[in-house]
Amino acid sequence: MDQARRTFREQLETAWAKNDSLLCVGLDPDLEHLPPHLLRKAQPIFAFNRSIVDATADLVCAYKPQIAHYSAVGAEHELERTIQYIHECHPDIPVILDAKRGDIGSTAVMYAREAFERYDADAVTVNPYLGYDALEPFLAHARRGILVLCRTSNPGGRAIQGDSDSKGGNDSDPLYLRIARLGAQEWDEHGNVNFVVGATEPEALARVRAVIGERAILVPGIGAQGGDPEAVVAAGLDSRGTGLVISSSRALLYADDGLQFAEAARDVATRTRREINEARQQIGV
Amino acid sequence: MDQARRTFREQLETAWAKNDSLLCVGLDPDLEHLPPHLLRKAQPIFAFNRSIVDATADLVCAYKPQIAHYSAVGAEHELERTIQYIHECHPDIPVILDAKRGDIGSTAVMYAREAFERYDADAVTVNPYLGYDALEPFLAHARRGILVLCRTSNPGGRAIQGDSDSKGGNDSDPLYLRIARLGAQEWDEHGNVNFVVGATEPEALARVRAVIGERAILVPGIGAQGGDPEAVVAAGLDSRGTGLVISSSRALLYADDGLQFAEAARDVATRTRREINEARQQIGV
Repeated sequence: MDQARRTFREQLETAWAKNDSLLCVGLDPDLEHLPPHLLRKAQPIFAFNRSIVDATADLVCAYKPQIAHYSAVGAEHELERTIQYIHECHPDIPVILDAKRGDIGSTAVMYAREAFERYDADAVTVNPYLGYDALEPFLAHARRGILVLCRTSNPGGRAIQGDSDSKGGNDSDPLYLRIARLGAQEWDEHGNVNFVVGATEPEALARVRAVIGERAILVPGIGAQGGDPEAVVAAGLDSRGTGLVISSSRALLYADDGLQFAEAARDVATRTRREINEARQQIGV
Repeated sequence: MDQARRTFREQLETAWAKNDSLLCVGLDPDLEHLPPHLLRKAQPIFAFNRSIVDATADLVCAYKPQIAHYSAVGAEHELERTIQYIHECHPDIPVILDAKRGDIGSTAVMYAREAFERYDADAVTVNPYLGYDALEPFLAHARRGILVLCRTSNPGGRAIQGDSDSKGGNDSDPLYLRIARLGAQEWDEHGNVNFVVGATEPEALARVRAVIGERAILVPGIGAQGGDPEAVVAAGLDSRGTGLVISSSRALLYADDGLQFAEAARDVATRTRREINEARQQIGV
């Protein structure tokens, strides 16, 4: 199956072009925020996700389910069904499993099996703290995408990952930039390495872009977390005006908690995509 | 329930003393290595774990299920049953869920819920790459233990976490040591911070011990990964001759793949505990 499958990169290029969109929808269902009428269903999380996906599939370049929102409540089967549904009904849109896994040896092999065999995700986010050999079992799945955390959007990231505007790390670069260099120059044997930089850190985004070429950057943190799409686009586009996967979750998923939640989500997705595309046009791409 | 529960530290002190043991058994079941006669059972992983636990419960200070070995094969329910079984039948032995989670904001809350509510683990391993605010939702569970990764046992850890024998990091310390200092001096508001240092890095273990006081250190990597129990004990004991949770998984779980697998595991646990205790006696504790 894996041989016939398009690569994550091919899927992403298709979705970027076909939907003229850099927007990714984060599928982070929280039972406390789901529209009450869905809670009577046997699988409320799957029902919610399916409606959100059907309402936005022509507006996005990727979906990104965050796995903790499923594992906290024992909803693994609803996550499986969600990803399967996207593959079947919207096969041009890749699915990024946001799991931020990182472990060594035989355990890393198990985590890769979880992401790519059990859930059949097209890509997965990983944590680089354990180094290259912890990522190797993921990278060996050459047709899947591996998104390596660099700089995260939370305030506490700075103390570990390094300042965007100063020096640090073992060498002269801050740690997040050293990881971007390692990922692009040493770890990317199969051409499937990509990166994650938070939307609240446009300076870090620009510095990462400068060292990783045309590789994709997943950018969480617009919407509820306060990242500015215009600043993200200005800092992060690749030379062809794409290269970004800009993710919004709560602002879109919970725009309305009534019967019209999917239409409300579509409205937010439409606005956010337009905002991103206007910023792209302003800088002439 | 959480108010009546003993803290992770209290459980650990009890198990250290009662079983005179610093040994932890890693419950990392792999269907490919399970004794063939168990595969006919409805829940082979749970059956395996129960036998290993019953065969070793008087020899250990903790059990450490590694979650990827369950999630890769959809065996979440068998993990739930395993932890519940240990709580019910061997209530003096704490359970450390080895998950190495790390994420921000509402997602970190979900991961803490997964570890402490869904699985009811007494402690969880976490990844510090995202900084303090990513750990806060775990730390808020004051009666549970939080084990922060410092230096891992794999060769690739060095490039990110820093050399044991040289300088590095944003300050003059290598990153893993800076994290140990932050954890002990700034993050430990509830007295539930502990650490993880690989058995293959005794020098890092000694440097971490020097800055964290009497906090516990989980030490994976003896047995199959080649860490030396004697070197671990010499480098890592606290001032009272305890403070370590030395974990062995494969060398013990798969000592025999026949009907006698549990007895074989008990033999390895007995030998390893004795080896650790002889090393403790040699240095006079």
